[in-house]
Amino acid sequence: MGKIILTGDRPTGKLHIGHYVGSLKRRVELQNSGEFDEIYIMIADAQALTDNADNPEKVRQNIIEVALDYLACGLDPKKCTLFIQSQIAELTELSFYYMNLVTVSRLQRNPTVKSEIAMRNFETSIPVGFFTYPISQAADITAFKATTVPVGEDQEPMLEQTREIVRKFNSVYGETLVEPEILLPDNKACLRLPGTDGKAKMSKSLGNCIYLSDSEEEVKKKIMSMYTDPNHIQVSDPGEVEGNTVFTYLDAFCKDEDFVKYLPDYNNLDELKAHYRRGGLGDVKVKRFLNSVLQAQLEPIRQRRKEYEANIPFVFQILKEGSEKAAAAAANTLRDVKEAMKINYFEDMELIEEQSKKYQSQE
Amino acid sequence: MGKIILTGDRPTGKLHIGHYVGSLKRRVELQNSGEFDEIYIMIADAQALTDNADNPEKVRQNIIEVALDYLACGLDPKKCTLFIQSQIAELTELSFYYMNLVTVSRLQRNPTVKSEIAMRNFETSIPVGFFTYPISQAADITAFKATTVPVGEDQEPMLEQTREIVRKFNSVYGETLVEPEILLPDNKACLRLPGTDGKAKMSKSLGNCIYLSDSEEEVKKKIMSMYTDPNHIQVSDPGEVEGNTVFTYLDAFCKDEDFVKYLPDYNNLDELKAHYRRGGLGDVKVKRFLNSVLQAQLEPIRQRRKEYEANIPFVFQILKEGSEKAAAAAANTLRDVKEAMKINYFEDMELIEEQSKKYQSQE
Repeated sequence: MGKIILTGDRPTGKLHIGHYVGSLKRRVELQNSGEFDEIYIMIADAQALTDNADNPEKVRQNIIEVALDYLACGLDPKKCTLFIQSQIAELTELSFYYMNLVTVSRLQRNPTVKSEIAMRNFETSIPVGFFTYPISQAADITAFKATTVPVGEDQEPMLEQTREIVRKFNSVYGETLVEPEILLPDNKACLRLPGTDGKAKMSKSLGNCIYLSDSEEEVKKKIMSMYTDPNHIQVSDPGEVEGNTVFTYLDAFCKDEDFVKYLPDYNNLDELKAHYRRGGLGDVKVKRFLNSVLQAQLEPIRQRRKEYEANIPFVFQILKEGSEKAAAAAANTLRDVKEAMKINYFEDMELIEEQSKKYQSQE
Repeated sequence: MGKIILTGDRPTGKLHIGHYVGSLKRRVELQNSGEFDEIYIMIADAQALTDNADNPEKVRQNIIEVALDYLACGLDPKKCTLFIQSQIAELTELSFYYMNLVTVSRLQRNPTVKSEIAMRNFETSIPVGFFTYPISQAADITAFKATTVPVGEDQEPMLEQTREIVRKFNSVYGETLVEPEILLPDNKACLRLPGTDGKAKMSKSLGNCIYLSDSEEEVKKKIMSMYTDPNHIQVSDPGEVEGNTVFTYLDAFCKDEDFVKYLPDYNNLDELKAHYRRGGLGDVKVKRFLNSVLQAQLEPIRQRRKEYEANIPFVFQILKEGSEKAAAAAANTLRDVKEAMKINYFEDMELIEEQSKKYQSQE
């Protein structure tokens, strides 16, 4: 059996460089590794609607943004299947039957759901769709018989919920579904990029994100006004690199080669950090270097995005074809699931014969 | 807009005369009244699986039994659509989106769900599918744009949940769904027939049911050993008719004409009751009368059942055609729902144009 990836994003906004270092870059590497037989990348609009039911327009508008960001980063529709969750009806049918295999109290214990509920201030007014989304995720993953789900560590409880459903289903109805494994990021430093203001998380509402779709000027402006060490006032002052956003970004983005190209006075990031720590290195110089490094990485992404932006109907076509392919795969799994549950009555010749015989023998 | 009925039963056992007086008889009358444009009768296997996930075979085996009972009672596939819930994939998709419009605490407050949970001793281990079944019922009802749901008074909270979902959906996404009305039984006496042992409810596990499929001998045997008034020992003793199962059944089944035919010493049930109350009337005589009355009503049902039993593949064909018709109706509603939610992206030319223009204007 092959190795199959399922992953994706909620289309609630454009993707930013935090998404890039946290998952997109890796996804492209996995795509190009040749190690996977199938890669499904899902734009999770149906999941986004579970806590945006009142604002479907936001989700609708951002589907194409996320698709553009995917294509811009190098996800290649020839190598992976880009699709829109809501277009795969089979996923809701799988969710429906999996809901019989999970108890309400089990969902309540899910730590990811707990913290997401707290984050959204839902308390007692949690939409049922949001409360049950771990089950919906299990449907997404198992529909494609995914073996591998590349997500952050915080998603491990969700994967465990999926594995529980798989084991329960297979034990009740017979071996049908595949247990997925989590594939954690290999670079802990890249796990979560802070906002440009130094806050722990990039967030649209805080205005502290650098988007993949930002222009060169926007990126430069955001970098030049970035949060550094507030006590590093004079160039001659010693500076802190821990918690200094510019250095955190350099940790995530720069390589030794970048010094040769853009800052040949230093051999590597350790030397730069050492100079900053002992004093005599100004923020502006470090920011200019980060700008060179980041622009070099963002420029090809920006160019590819522009190409696709000029041909939106083609992007829709990619999503349509991907969704058709994904639907066909999910339909196969659903057929197996219904056969295992023996609820495929009209294809079930055995049932028709059994019942006929039962009544013939009563004559 | 037409009048449309949606109703049905969980296929967890053969149907008994309690179902007959409680709903089936009425359904046939409604069918033959000519007042309804469409009548959908659902064998609710998917709902039965929400608390029988471990025992799908029970549900599978009882689908045909329920279908046979339907046809035997006079439901006519030319006049109503008999279908199997699980074969209508659209219902799960509707459920999925309705789940975003209901909160967890709202489900917890549903009195019908509360009492069903207590009845099943679920406590903390309620399957999510069972917990959310009021939402699934809303999908069943609205999928067919049903205006009329003929059920017992105890189901009113379920109907109210459906109406809430309809109102919420229509207010968020625009007028799309139809609010259903409950149609209560017209005969209070028929609401719930006790078991033959006098216990409040007929139940397979208590062995106190008279099934529509029971033979003449079985019915007679069950009637002759029925619970009456335990203090009515000698024929000459005065007897109680309240709580006396034989009289409760007569309340539900006998008409004045039956006295002319089977017990001409009395003009009506009131006279019979009066004699029983003052003493001098034996249980055996009353039971024989009930037997005559009930056999006369069950005989045509039994005969029709035998005809269909001899042709099980034909019964499957009826269910298949009904399910296809129901699926087509539900697909229409789902199309309206997705259009209202604007998640029909690939048919949504406006979206493609909007997005194209947005990026052209940025050039």
